Amino acid sequence: MRMVDLIEKKRDGYALTKEEIQFIIQGYTTGEIPDYQMSAFAMAVFFRGMTEEETAALTMAMVHSGDTIDLSEIEGIKVDKHSTGGVGDTTTLVLGPLVASVGVPVAKMSGRGLGHTGGTIDKLESVPGFHVEISNEEFIELVNKNKLAVVGQSGNLTPADKKLYALRDVTATVNSIPLIASSIMSKKIAAGADAIVLDVKTGAGAFMKELDDAKALAKAMVEIGKRVGRKTMAIISDMSQPLGYAVGNALEVKEAIDTLRGEGPADLQELCLVLGSHMVYLAEKASSLEEARHLLENAIKDGSALETFKRFLTAQGGDASVVDDPSKLPQAKYQIELEAKEDGYVSKIVADEVGTAAMLLGAGRATKESTIDLAVGLVLRKKVGDAVKKGESLVTIYSNTEQIDEVKQLLTESIKISSNRVTPPTLIYDKIS
Amino acid sequence: MRMVDLIEKKRDGYALTKEEIQFIIQGYTTGEIPDYQMSAFAMAVFFRGMTEEETAALTMAMVHSGDTIDLSEIEGIKVDKHSTGGVGDTTTLVLGPLVASVGVPVAKMSGRGLGHTGGTIDKLESVPGFHVEISNEEFIELVNKNKLAVVGQSGNLTPADKKLYALRDVTATVNSIPLIASSIMSKKIAAGADAIVLDVKTGAGAFMKELDDAKALAKAMVEIGKRVGRKTMAIISDMSQPLGYAVGNALEVKEAIDTLRGEGPADLQELCLVLGSHMVYLAEKASSLEEARHLLENAIKDGSALETFKRFLTAQGGDASVVDDPSKLPQAKYQIELEAKEDGYVSKIVADEVGTAAMLLGAGRATKESTIDLAVGLVLRKKVGDAVKKGESLVTIYSNTEQIDEVKQLLTESIKISSNRVTPPTLIYDKIS
Repeated sequence: MRMVDLIEKKRDGYALTKEEIQFIIQGYTTGEIPDYQMSAFAMAVFFRGMTEEETAALTMAMVHSGDTIDLSEIEGIKVDKHSTGGVGDTTTLVLGPLVASVGVPVAKMSGRGLGHTGGTIDKLESVPGFHVEISNEEFIELVNKNKLAVVGQSGNLTPADKKLYALRDVTATVNSIPLIASSIMSKKIAAGADAIVLDVKTGAGAFMKELDDAKALAKAMVEIGKRVGRKTMAIISDMSQPLGYAVGNALEVKEAIDTLRGEGPADLQELCLVLGSHMVYLAEKASSLEEARHLLENAIKDGSALETFKRFLTAQGGDASVVDDPSKLPQAKYQIELEAKEDGYVSKIVADEVGTAAMLLGAGRATKESTIDLAVGLVLRKKVGDAVKKGESLVTIYSNTEQIDEVKQLLTESIKISSNRVTPPTLIYDKIS
Repeated sequence: MRMVDLIEKKRDGYALTKEEIQFIIQGYTTGEIPDYQMSAFAMAVFFRGMTEEETAALTMAMVHSGDTIDLSEIEGIKVDKHSTGGVGDTTTLVLGPLVASVGVPVAKMSGRGLGHTGGTIDKLESVPGFHVEISNEEFIELVNKNKLAVVGQSGNLTPADKKLYALRDVTATVNSIPLIASSIMSKKIAAGADAIVLDVKTGAGAFMKELDDAKALAKAMVEIGKRVGRKTMAIISDMSQPLGYAVGNALEVKEAIDTLRGEGPADLQELCLVLGSHMVYLAEKASSLEEARHLLENAIKDGSALETFKRFLTAQGGDASVVDDPSKLPQAKYQIELEAKEDGYVSKIVADEVGTAAMLLGAGRATKESTIDLAVGLVLRKKVGDAVKKGESLVTIYSNTEQIDEVKQLLTESIKISSNRVTPPTLIYDKIS
């Protein structure tokens, strides 16, 4: 087999066999196939696409390019959730304790990552004492005991995907549904998921700006799951504006606590209940989505979701009293209100720019070396559709400096006010299974 | 400017500006733009094509990526000819003396190259004493004196093209008309051509198997010529069977001599007259193609074409008496006839396989290190459409070994005989200017 022939085959619109795809991924992982052939191949895939068989084969070839996590010692069906990313997405912090509280094992491996805010681990480290330095044995023991634990990702998972993703990023081959779908699914499968719930975001603040693209990606991933024996369901949810109100690390922890108590933002709460029901259903803790949702609503109502969160924090060294006294979370020096300059209705909140504003305040990492300020960020006071009066606060800015002209400017530009009534966007566009 | 954005622009079907193309080619030549970005770009060009403006800009960017040859000290309009390659193509050997004999300056820079037979220099070295070790000054002086001289290619011409071609070869991005057209034209322009005549081959033995592709390539090259101020005309000619009869180095020299005397194979003679008329016309030595052809026919008839060839050989140390006594050319030890196994009409001569047979005999180079046997090769006794009787010779094989079973086998398979009458293929399909 020669890589040049396989590039040509794909270029000319033919489907590759499983063996051919394995040859490509193995060769690329070991370095026998050079970047310049792989990038030409990726561009050919961009134009020609891949069949469902090819995409599934690519996924599994990437899974087997490195280590895989064995979660078999954890009792029950391990359901993982993945979001395609957006601004102010606090769902992971809520969903872990929420579904764990009804008996779904959540063995969360997470990274720190780059972005508008830190990753799940960064956010949780807002809780004094909380740490993820636990052994694999402790991790498994904790999940079996509390149904929830979080560790940093270890091992050399999907090296082919890492290498390919870095290459795609500099060769304009990111936007290919089979390549995106296989990248996401390979990571989840290598990390030991038995079943997967996907939250595919769409709208201006999402990677998939168009609903049709988001649906196509969701379908591709659900199809991969079917073909490789991991039950997969997907939700298409709105990211035309930030989810919930808070964008920041400690601020999102506080918002998660509010939501677990049933007092969070309506959109965040609803999305968590929908995603959570799917997780509970796939974990076979309920025989229908309706039953699953009912269980979760109860867990919020009777306090068991919040109790689970506390137990989880304590087990990993965290001070669980933050749950009842959020002032123990890192606090920013300044709280500055951004006031509306006119009466009207919020017609748009450009999610990307709100994210950038949080980043400018210090909530996120631009490079691996950046340090994160856990206290800073912002909390929206209005969402799209809300009526607003001149002088009312649109956003509270949590900052450790008073020099925030740029942030204010950016937020002012990103929040549009219209004189006409505005309908809030749909939160959940579709469910795919 | 960032290469990734330019790849994306092309990927999405937009035309690049001249400055953007210069940025790409300069960056790629210096190594600032890595192979993996260039190959993704080439694949995007494969799918999206390039406008005429883009193709012309790419050509000139490649011309300026390295040295260019200055032929301004040679009097007259320097017209170069390029063939897209085939089997038994003796036109260059004929055309040089032919057009020189009517006053068109031919300053031929040639390589040795890989292929079924050697390059023009290898072939000419069949003539005892002939050499190309002359200085640039001598070269220019000889062209001004005799209108014809040949040297080996020197200088670092179109390094961007060399680098890009090598990359395309291993990334399945060779078959892109703007990339092929700009590659050919950049080399001719860098080598100092004022005007260019192109012989684009089509048919089973050509790179462009389909007539439409050959036409598209010819049009693209003529258009580049127009846009960059080098008058360019193209012929689309047949390569469904080898051109002429001879395939080999000394054998092709002998065939060229026959043709210059007016006694060569009909197809070779006709193609040389057509290509030659275009060269004479572009060199402004005739005011119409008809007048140009008339001049050339006369030069053959009155012996001045052959005289020019002799003068040229002598000037570069060659023994010009080979022209009157071809037995002074290298002779193979064995001449073996391949006999027809049945009566009928020759219906097909697979050019590629005939070329491979010559290669197996030792006429060509498989790698740069191979040595060439100038004496060996083969001479077709029949062409497509010819009647043949059982036992008659189809091909004379010139070999230095008697172990030629493989060659015979290959030739037998490549020459098909039909019981029905067969129309010979069209020689010249189209002329584009």
